[in-house]
Amino acid sequence: MTQVDVTSELLYRVTAPTSFIFNIAPAITDCQAIKDEKLTISPQIEFSWCALNGYGSRGIRLNVQPCDLKIAYLAEVSLFAEMAPPKILDEVDHPELPVEVLPFLNPSRYCESDRLGQFAWREFSGVPSGHSRVQAVADWVNKNISYISGSTDVSSSACDVLIQRTGVCRDFAHVSITLCRALGIPARYVSGYAVGLQPPDFHGFFEAYLHDRWYLFDATKMAPVSGLVRIGVGRDAADSSFATIVGQAQLQSMSVGAVSNQSVAQNQVGEGANAISTA
Amino acid sequence: MTQVDVTSELLYRVTAPTSFIFNIAPAITDCQAIKDEKLTISPQIEFSWCALNGYGSRGIRLNVQPCDLKIAYLAEVSLFAEMAPPKILDEVDHPELPVEVLPFLNPSRYCESDRLGQFAWREFSGVPSGHSRVQAVADWVNKNISYISGSTDVSSSACDVLIQRTGVCRDFAHVSITLCRALGIPARYVSGYAVGLQPPDFHGFFEAYLHDRWYLFDATKMAPVSGLVRIGVGRDAADSSFATIVGQAQLQSMSVGAVSNQSVAQNQVGEGANAISTA
Amino acid sequence: MTQVDVTSELLYRVTAPTSFIFNIAPAITDCQAIKDEKLTISPQIEFSWCALNGYGSRGIRLNVQPCDLKIAYLAEVSLFAEMAPPKILDEVDHPELPVEVLPFLNPSRYCESDRLGQFAWREFSGVPSGHSRVQAVADWVNKNISYISGSTDVSSSACDVLIQRTGVCRDFAHVSITLCRALGIPARYVSGYAVGLQPPDFHGFFEAYLHDRWYLFDATKMAPVSGLVRIGVGRDAADSSFATIVGQAQLQSMSVGAVSNQSVAQNQVGEGANAISTA
Amino acid sequence: MTQVDVTSELLYRVTAPTSFIFNIAPAITDCQAIKDEKLTISPQIEFSWCALNGYGSRGIRLNVQPCDLKIAYLAEVSLFAEMAPPKILDEVDHPELPVEVLPFLNPSRYCESDRLGQFAWREFSGVPSGHSRVQAVADWVNKNISYISGSTDVSSSACDVLIQRTGVCRDFAHVSITLCRALGIPARYVSGYAVGLQPPDFHGFFEAYLHDRWYLFDATKMAPVSGLVRIGVGRDAADSSFATIVGQAQLQSMSVGAVSNQSVAQNQVGEGANAISTA
Repeated sequence: MTQVDVTSELLYRVTAPTSFIFNIAPAITDCQAIKDEKLTISPQIEFSWCALNGYGSRGIRLNVQPCDLKIAYLAEVSLFAEMAPPKILDEVDHPELPVEVLPFLNPSRYCESDRLGQFAWREFSGVPSGHSRVQAVADWVNKNISYISGSTDVSSSACDVLIQRTGVCRDFAHVSITLCRALGIPARYVSGYAVGLQPPDFHGFFEAYLHDRWYLFDATKMAPVSGLVRIGVGRDAADSSFATIVGQAQLQSMSVGAVSNQSVAQNQVGEGANAISTA
Repeated sequence: MTQVDVTSELLYRVTAPTSFIFNIAPAITDCQAIKDEKLTISPQIEFSWCALNGYGSRGIRLNVQPCDLKIAYLAEVSLFAEMAPPKILDEVDHPELPVEVLPFLNPSRYCESDRLGQFAWREFSGVPSGHSRVQAVADWVNKNISYISGSTDVSSSACDVLIQRTGVCRDFAHVSITLCRALGIPARYVSGYAVGLQPPDFHGFFEAYLHDRWYLFDATKMAPVSGLVRIGVGRDAADSSFATIVGQAQLQSMSVGAVSNQSVAQNQVGEGANAISTA
Repeated sequence: MTQVDVTSELLYRVTAPTSFIFNIAPAITDCQAIKDEKLTISPQIEFSWCALNGYGSRGIRLNVQPCDLKIAYLAEVSLFAEMAPPKILDEVDHPELPVEVLPFLNPSRYCESDRLGQFAWREFSGVPSGHSRVQAVADWVNKNISYISGSTDVSSSACDVLIQRTGVCRDFAHVSITLCRALGIPARYVSGYAVGLQPPDFHGFFEAYLHDRWYLFDATKMAPVSGLVRIGVGRDAADSSFATIVGQAQLQSMSVGAVSNQSVAQNQVGEGANAISTA
Repeated sequence: MTQVDVTSELLYRVTAPTSFIFNIAPAITDCQAIKDEKLTISPQIEFSWCALNGYGSRGIRLNVQPCDLKIAYLAEVSLFAEMAPPKILDEVDHPELPVEVLPFLNPSRYCESDRLGQFAWREFSGVPSGHSRVQAVADWVNKNISYISGSTDVSSSACDVLIQRTGVCRDFAHVSITLCRALGIPARYVSGYAVGLQPPDFHGFFEAYLHDRWYLFDATKMAPVSGLVRIGVGRDAADSSFATIVGQAQLQSMSVGAVSNQSVAQNQVGEGANAISTA
């Protein structure tokens, strides 16, 4: 079990009546428990928690009149990750995939896997199937895409990024997911907190379905997988923004933190390290 | 209540072990009941029915060795559509949208609604909100896109179609869905049978969430909405193919039919006609 | 004859040996004469003038070692525009088009006219052919695209802009050119100075080939066509950047000006006004 | 000197008055001479030869009333190629590039070199500059793109092909040209006849500007470079179609041939072979 203290604070200037859904609280799953959660909204505004999907994500929904809005969240998260030696994590043949996993083989807004079949098979057909193939995808993305802040925007898709070869964490995840799906491996986007991420921010990574569950991967290699705290899950970043805003509001400042009392770095996937599942 | 007899027959040449999921049986919902359903698979192969999503869609899953595979399906469908006068069908403010409807505001593979905000608001902001706005979107698509078989392919998205101005039923649905989402109206793709469609084929249309439920629209105007029989529902056609095939199989022939004992054409949305919901 | 005083001053921080080609001096053509031209480069660096194409454009070519580079240019330009009543400016049938005009019917990097045939004919087939059709294109662009600084970048093409419906002068010109070519009307990009442009800057506009020569149009309507001073001509903005830079240099500041002793606004195309050609 | 007999025969059904420009006759250059040229058009229709650009290309221009049109062309071509050992063919620094070569550094419709800078430098910065770098580009394209007839269409650009990883000769040329331009090496498209091409057809290949002239490359490796006969030259295939058609005409059949009395295969670029220039 790993303990992670997460915090986030968002400040908006709201200039018209605006509907917000914040997706900043860690999901509650079999592998993630929340203690001492504290949400402060100022000015004091009525809000409601909502179950955003079937994966334990919890939205904070509120309607705001023009004001300076501050959302501050903190919690202590306990991670009970399932671990497994990578070598036993085989790919699941299509007929054996659970029905609820099938949508994560479909192409999505930022993951046009239908266009990348040839490319994916050319590049990764020689790699042993299973966890090693997904890791090879993440390694390829890490090696071939340059992490450059501001080089992409919210409309950038995996194909765009494969052409321009630069991006940020969400792009690294999108390209990885797209290649996995093109290879017939279900993959999905996860947003979250990440212990050790520099500079601290919300993070985007991905999960691939192997053997009998979802395993975590991070193509950016900017933070240990064992210190990832799940917030949202979806087909791609379109499903997992930390804030959905309908109205008129400008983000003024944001600060995010994730600190662990253990050295999560030691659990990082590497030679002989275990694969990690928190889904 | 409307009765529709639907039939479909698909013939494949399977040249390697192949996994199929057929999505050709009408969904079972509060508004659709199935009688006298008959599924014939030859050669005789073990298959299973599966619930494809939470919307009543039923997949037929089977693994096939090389052979000539024939799937024949027929059923009598009873439609218990909810009807409502269009003028009471208002748009739902974002804060009041049910959580499970929210994903249908997100952009998807073939519906890049994030790119069309300006366009949608320029074109449709002057139209009265509610059912009339969605109908205006469908009418615009009908008027501005030419229906030309073969002019698009499986990788064509709403933006592609808006540039080239030609497409088929799935493209008409995609553009409509994309414009609705850009306007803040949840919209989704429906595949199905359509009474009166010429030439007979599986059809693609769309639903918009208005007032308190999903209402049917067909931008192609090629078949009356009251004669639409729902098979699959999803974010776009990526979620609703009539056949998902992993392996090696060529479609040799396909025939599809939908016949009603009533004159469904009389229920078509027009001056004073009712809007129809079957979700 | 119209007299225009043009000035431009560019300041770069050059951090590695860099090759520059500046295209900021007005072209010399039958319709444009230059008087009292003055080019100041500091520090003093050897440079050469070069004929950039067959249209009278003149590049300033120089190689620069790391330094703070300042280019200051000023000239007095005499415009001897050909004028013609719009109603006599017919489109030229394809067989009669001069060979050297033909390349301006081809699609180019930012003007994918091959994709817009349906769209262009749907929108403009009903408009009387000739000058009025090109003017209808420019008017449509002006009405349907919002001028928003910073809403596009150097990779934005006409199709991108038609989807997002926002852009700047180069985008307005690109969309217009693309629609003209799709209609079979040769069209090309012109960069230049513009009297009355607010805020002052280099400007991008376009020419269409009508009757027997190239006529000027400006879809932005931000400056009178009679006060446009031609710098570069090309298939699109890819051919006409005011600075081509190979090396490492950051633009620190830029100021541009164009002032006329006459009231050029009175020559603006409008009811009964003349079309203007300076090619 | 190499002699090549070229032939082509095109049959069109013309169903409305139509303007044609055929670009099927070999260009006349310092390196290509034409003997015994014969052009037969039936029915007999007046036509004219025209100089399509400054590179020796010769168009055949005619206006046709509805009919079955047959164009048959044959000629004996003498190739006086310039040869050079690849190792002396260095890249030309930007300041030393002739002005008329500069446009071939610009992005074009099918060659979006502005988007591929990162990719090109990542992949080819380690390769020795000059002829070997261009050859590395062509080799990379040959290895990473699958030649599949019908996998692309006239709207496919280099970026599309880089994503889908399949294409035909024009796509191989487009990707190569795009990568060269992104690397700062001028490159252009050449259409022509190719001795030994199977199946016989018009061919698309490319030239890169090295040392002091344009050198031929063929990323498809489907025919020896020494047997290439130049027809058209341009920024990309948009400039070099073998037939420009304005009106209504369907191609009914086409046959193309190129036969040499010498064994051109022996001149193919390989270990120690010479680079070939015919521009």
